[in-house]
Amino acid sequence: MTLLDKDNLEIALARGKAEHLAFGELCYTRLTDEIGGVPKGSVVLADGSVIPGYPSIARIQALDPGLKKQFEGPFWAEEKMDGFNIRIFFQGGRVYALSRGGFVCPFSTDRMLDLLDPAIFTNHPELILCAELVGPDNPYLEGHSPQVQEDIDLFIFDMMRRDREGFLPQQHRMDLLEEFELPRAEIFSRFQPSDREAISELIRRLDEDGKEGLVFKPEDGGQRAKYVTARSNTYDFSVTSEGLLDQPPEYFTNRLLRMGLFMAEHGQRQDHDRMSELGHALMQGLFRSIDASRDHNRVGSRFRCRFNRRENAYRFIQHIEQTGGERVKVYDDMPRQEGDYWLLEFERIHQRMTGFLNQALQGGRQFD
Amino acid sequence: MTLLDKDNLEIALARGKAEHLAFGELCYTRLTDEIGGVPKGSVVLADGSVIPGYPSIARIQALDPGLKKQFEGPFWAEEKMDGFNIRIFFQGGRVYALSRGGFVCPFSTDRMLDLLDPAIFTNHPELILCAELVGPDNPYLEGHSPQVQEDIDLFIFDMMRRDREGFLPQQHRMDLLEEFELPRAEIFSRFQPSDREAISELIRRLDEDGKEGLVFKPEDGGQRAKYVTARSNTYDFSVTSEGLLDQPPEYFTNRLLRMGLFMAEHGQRQDHDRMSELGHALMQGLFRSIDASRDHNRVGSRFRCRFNRRENAYRFIQHIEQTGGERVKVYDDMPRQEGDYWLLEFERIHQRMTGFLNQALQGGRQFD
Repeated sequence: MTLLDKDNLEIALARGKAEHLAFGELCYTRLTDEIGGVPKGSVVLADGSVIPGYPSIARIQALDPGLKKQFEGPFWAEEKMDGFNIRIFFQGGRVYALSRGGFVCPFSTDRMLDLLDPAIFTNHPELILCAELVGPDNPYLEGHSPQVQEDIDLFIFDMMRRDREGFLPQQHRMDLLEEFELPRAEIFSRFQPSDREAISELIRRLDEDGKEGLVFKPEDGGQRAKYVTARSNTYDFSVTSEGLLDQPPEYFTNRLLRMGLFMAEHGQRQDHDRMSELGHALMQGLFRSIDASRDHNRVGSRFRCRFNRRENAYRFIQHIEQTGGERVKVYDDMPRQEGDYWLLEFERIHQRMTGFLNQALQGGRQFD
Repeated sequence: MTLLDKDNLEIALARGKAEHLAFGELCYTRLTDEIGGVPKGSVVLADGSVIPGYPSIARIQALDPGLKKQFEGPFWAEEKMDGFNIRIFFQGGRVYALSRGGFVCPFSTDRMLDLLDPAIFTNHPELILCAELVGPDNPYLEGHSPQVQEDIDLFIFDMMRRDREGFLPQQHRMDLLEEFELPRAEIFSRFQPSDREAISELIRRLDEDGKEGLVFKPEDGGQRAKYVTARSNTYDFSVTSEGLLDQPPEYFTNRLLRMGLFMAEHGQRQDHDRMSELGHALMQGLFRSIDASRDHNRVGSRFRCRFNRRENAYRFIQHIEQTGGERVKVYDDMPRQEGDYWLLEFERIHQRMTGFLNQALQGGRQFD
């Protein structure tokens, strides 16, 4: 069974819905759009095999009656981690990691053997591990789940097979995670749609711990749903308000809505500390950006990450310069050797925030 | 001198940039777009005289160095009121009030003689009074300046003349306000661009009192600028977060920026109460809208206003039904006699918020 035949791919390439790319010896084709049911972000390797894109997961905003409405049978609740999504595969004796968009990620690929024993691919070369890379030393995201306080770590939460739609069944995935002692996102319990109270307790505990939320996965492989904590929104604000204008404004309004719905459902309407936290998260980021504008005439976020191979750091720099343009500033002496690693530090410039604040703080006039 | 000749107006009408309207005996043409330098919202009466639109005022977001950058000579600081902008004029022995968009407002026109002694028009029939209508019993705005705790009140802040560009000079306006004892927005003081400290003190006092802000008006008639308090933003959030999705999302992000800039400039970075207020303002409106969705399957804001003449209440209903469509629900027994007035109560439905919350609270799945 193949998901995508050669003709379809040729047409997609001709229409600009796919592009040829290479990473070292690996030649691959990235789908920049959905083609014949194969999702955007999928990758076709030189041998024609397809690594499917990771699908979007819909969100519910009320456990009651969301659980009963969305699920008819048992489902598993697993932790949703705050990091970035990768798909790990094995080809020509090497392990590669794809970003959500379908690029081989030089950073994740470089660090993969630090985080994962590839033995599973010896027995199951067709397997694709879907995982979250989490931690402060990552080159994409400002926030991260509280579980990882330094460098990065890997949390596998799904498995797929080449040329196949859908995920490995829950039990099969859990067996493989066990057998190969793989790092995983926490799998809490199997629930029924009527277990609202137990799930409420679980999500309130995650909320207290500053964790992001849950993904509910039906045992029969049906449609999943995610549900996030109130605090995940405050946390997002605390790391993104610095670049307030560089996010779509709906980023903020959608999270405010989610937070309000969560607090209302979980009896937190009188939780004044939490509302205070919200106000602080929004304003303190702005104060930092005002200082940055005053001190450096620019607002940006600093990133750091480490590579085993210098070559991969250069590949990564090339990648962000091609995709990020003037929004990325790699510091002068980078990459720099640090112990066994090559350290890369760079800044993502919040261009709209930089422009707005420079103008405002210089006393400019603005029409709304 | 006329601002707009007959030919230009005919062309504008043909191009859909102007429309003929009537209010009782008054026939007028409303400019829906700028025409030959005459701004949108201007009105041409049957005799050809033009009532110019009220121009937008630019905003500064930093007193230092904004005042020195924007002003070269003395300017007056006047209170910016939180209400809606009208232009009052006299024609055929009657007083009319125009909305910002250039409609004769049935509500403001009906109530004008309760609020204003029209004697000034006997001596100065060509005069146009630019004013803010402020108060809880208004049909347009949910918030209002704290000065008016019941019904509505009038605050004149500018004067124009028919067929002329620009405003009456400051001293001339102040003399007329004095002579005819007209209700006015507070005129604080005449300042120099170097008076930043005194203006800072003034705006901090307004901020403490929950007032909206200041408009700076150069004595030489040059470009004005407005500057608002931090609290005006929190106040806006407290009345609009209920309809969060029915405002452009930039409504929220722009106000967050203004609030951050104000707090940073005025030494309020440690003002935890204020940040807490911000979080409460955002969440408590959402809690109200969640309750409204649960209780009534819709989210809306209730408005009430009073008319002297029943006929004007009907005119107003017709106006909002034409311009607001399904977003307005006039209650069944309205207008209803209440003392000497005809009371009108109606609801503006937050349609996007209603749709979103109904779906979310019924447990629907949403893709971001």
